[in-house]
Amino acid sequence: MSQLSHYDEQGTARMVDVSAKPPTARTAKAHAFVRMSAQVLAALPRNPKGNPLEVARIAAIQAAKRTSDLIPLCHPIPLSLVDVDFGIEKDGIRVITSVACTAGTGAEMEALMAASIAALTIYDMTKALDKAIEITSLHLISKTGGKNGDYQRQPHE
Amino acid sequence: MSQLSHYDEQGTARMVDVSAKPPTARTAKAHAFVRMSAQVLAALPRNPKGNPLEVARIAAIQAAKRTSDLIPLCHPIPLSLVDVDFGIEKDGIRVITSVACTAGTGAEMEALMAASIAALTIYDMTKALDKAIEITSLHLISKTGGKNGDYQRQPHE
Amino acid sequence: MSQLSHYDEQGTARMVDVSAKPPTARTAKAHAFVRMSAQVLAALPRNPKGNPLEVARIAAIQAAKRTSDLIPLCHPIPLSLVDVDFGIEKDGIRVITSVACTAGTGAEMEALMAASIAALTIYDMTKALDKAIEITSLHLISKTGGKNGDYQRQPHE
Amino acid sequence: MSQLSHYDEQGTARMVDVSAKPPTARTAKAHAFVRMSAQVLAALPRNPKGNPLEVARIAAIQAAKRTSDLIPLCHPIPLSLVDVDFGIEKDGIRVITSVACTAGTGAEMEALMAASIAALTIYDMTKALDKAIEITSLHLISKTGGKNGDYQRQPHE
Amino acid sequence: MSQLSHYDEQGTARMVDVSAKPPTARTAKAHAFVRMSAQVLAALPRNPKGNPLEVARIAAIQAAKRTSDLIPLCHPIPLSLVDVDFGIEKDGIRVITSVACTAGTGAEMEALMAASIAALTIYDMTKALDKAIEITSLHLISKTGGKNGDYQRQPHE
Amino acid sequence: MSQLSHYDEQGTARMVDVSAKPPTARTAKAHAFVRMSAQVLAALPRNPKGNPLEVARIAAIQAAKRTSDLIPLCHPIPLSLVDVDFGIEKDGIRVITSVACTAGTGAEMEALMAASIAALTIYDMTKALDKAIEITSLHLISKTGGKNGDYQRQPHE
Repeated sequence: MSQLSHYDEQGTARMVDVSAKPPTARTAKAHAFVRMSAQVLAALPRNPKGNPLEVARIAAIQAAKRTSDLIPLCHPIPLSLVDVDFGIEKDGIRVITSVACTAGTGAEMEALMAASIAALTIYDMTKALDKAIEITSLHLISKTGGKNGDYQRQPHE
Repeated sequence: MSQLSHYDEQGTARMVDVSAKPPTARTAKAHAFVRMSAQVLAALPRNPKGNPLEVARIAAIQAAKRTSDLIPLCHPIPLSLVDVDFGIEKDGIRVITSVACTAGTGAEMEALMAASIAALTIYDMTKALDKAIEITSLHLISKTGGKNGDYQRQPHE
Repeated sequence: MSQLSHYDEQGTARMVDVSAKPPTARTAKAHAFVRMSAQVLAALPRNPKGNPLEVARIAAIQAAKRTSDLIPLCHPIPLSLVDVDFGIEKDGIRVITSVACTAGTGAEMEALMAASIAALTIYDMTKALDKAIEITSLHLISKTGGKNGDYQRQPHE
Repeated sequence: MSQLSHYDEQGTARMVDVSAKPPTARTAKAHAFVRMSAQVLAALPRNPKGNPLEVARIAAIQAAKRTSDLIPLCHPIPLSLVDVDFGIEKDGIRVITSVACTAGTGAEMEALMAASIAALTIYDMTKALDKAIEITSLHLISKTGGKNGDYQRQPHE
Repeated sequence: MSQLSHYDEQGTARMVDVSAKPPTARTAKAHAFVRMSAQVLAALPRNPKGNPLEVARIAAIQAAKRTSDLIPLCHPIPLSLVDVDFGIEKDGIRVITSVACTAGTGAEMEALMAASIAALTIYDMTKALDKAIEITSLHLISKTGGKNGDYQRQPHE
Repeated sequence: MSQLSHYDEQGTARMVDVSAKPPTARTAKAHAFVRMSAQVLAALPRNPKGNPLEVARIAAIQAAKRTSDLIPLCHPIPLSLVDVDFGIEKDGIRVITSVACTAGTGAEMEALMAASIAALTIYDMTKALDKAIEITSLHLISKTGGKNGDYQRQPHE
């Protein structure tokens, strides 16, 4: 851990001051993939805890609203939209989240939080079938708004 | 989404009833990896928000304690330990979490929640350097206790 | 449950997107009634847990501020006022709540949440006297602001 | 400040001390009714926010776990079960909640909280159709366990 | 800051593992003093926000229950009692809190949290009268239970 | 219940209505001192729970964001900055917090909450060394913004 151990002599964590940033429209999209075997996917209709996707959607929306409670240096943001979509694929479930707000700072963490909690809720509801289910590729897809400009993840990233 | 759309005609989500399970000692370990380039790792000592690992550790411990607030069908569990370790590797930061409790149900979700929030906090603190940082391999490593026996993830999983 | 079981083939719950709505002044009022016998009402001054109304007032104000944590598809709203009034009547306690905000969406749920939690707190503080106490007539009284116009509950509703 | 110090003698809110009560098995059931017109019930399949019942169920489970955050003098209770059932009737939706725990105090408030939040979530998801929807008959149905014995609401109550 | 800067080379914060500690009965008492002028004390009956003491009492009870949410390395504890008493003195308001639990770790932080939040709530409700109000002498009075034995603060401390 | 309805006239806690106040830039600074002996300060490098200051800083930032959850009559405020500084002195640790927001009401309580929780976290992390550690001088240092003008604590206060 030599790279990090000395890098910040005070170890001081600081919020970024957004006092001077006027609220502007911003969006962010994030992605996660819950990898599970075809057998588990086929068994989901008999999943003991119910439909994991509808529960995961609600959990994700609620968690997005609480991001600044969970990520210490995040600013509270009044979200105007949280949307969660799922795709069933042959080796797992794809999670795509979209958030929007009018704020002085972006909502990337809110989109990532929603994707993460959606994926974890799917895990929680299916772990009786297979504990080896894995969450992969949790990342930002895109963001718009803010002075640093838009971002679009490149295919090779 | 044909596999899921009909599988639960009522869509009914239900908590598992743990009323009859006496509290027993349980542990769980989980893993996540925050993939970032060598350049970003090398730049961390000048990270604008401070030391991401110490902030991530605290965020992870606090989130583990709130798992049942975030994952809808989780039972509240009185955690007796949450531990978070980091390893700096050449292509990113490895997160290993350990939790322990004496409860009627296991703490797998608490370990996974801690790993997920640690990884997201690292992302939040380094995203100014690189928005393409990705969280991968969020999974359970092992668990002990409970009537279903112990679990150890296999290397090939 | 035939009316509902097929109505939404994906069962998809979605937040309403309020991104395009500028913040405007809004108010809402809600009502609940806690029905209790004249004997219980007469015994309240010797209530074992203290004055239920002052505790209920605080609980209601605090819950109104947390509405978006509790109602999954509610947007977070910066409330500028929460007020709670009580009327002692011969067959129970009337609860009237008023909220105000400047936001892109209305505060009806915040007013209803305050009324509901005030009533439940009164129940909690008096249940040692009578477990049959019932909460009735939890409804919106009025709202102002927003593009759909004002609403005033009609006497016969 | 003599006005306050004397007033304090009657106004003091106090938690009941449950230190000496060993944990025992307890259950509680509660009821609420969301009254809406036949036209609104018939329109629910085209409800703009999605299936209100599945969202309400999740909201109710999550709120039950947070009862001691919301009702000031409630003790925190490790719930082992929260269950929420709905019945569609010709003039509205009936909500029945069941909770179980092993604790030193009963879970009546948790059952009532779940019923109340389920009903409010249904209101939130249908208020675009009719703001006059009303929540009635929020009451305890039964409880078991604890030294004061079981309780069963009587039909005429 | 030379004393601290090197003392913990990893800066690693860790929860104390209480897995092996059986639950035992514990109590703790804490103290705070809210110093205000005789003029402010005399004006409290006309305080613009209402009776600060009853609001402070409720806030303190609720905060004690959330201590492990606020103090990162605290374990969640099922409190069986939180009590808050006030004394009006000639130069301010004395706050005494008492908590009890049956747990594997003590409740000192819960008693201190209650005292702190009670004092801050009194400040909030009286700051319109005088912003110079100060909170002093926030400390533990005593604790009982646990393997380290009882503690009683000495008069000269 | 005439005793209560009249008592209510003086006991009523009310939020201040800030509906008519436009958001303006505001700042607040607060102070606390954690008094501990020179021996305890010297022992901190071997503190069993890790570096108290970095943990306290994170706890303080997170608590500031949740002030309106904890102080009943506080309005929710979108903080744009929370900063926490520590000074190690010969008889203890000085805590200075700074907050900023653009809101219709000031952020004094947020600054005081941060200072209080930072101090309590330091206590939690050092109480194994000395339970007599005391928090003193928790007060507002200054505020700017708002129609009542700026405030600067005087040295003799």
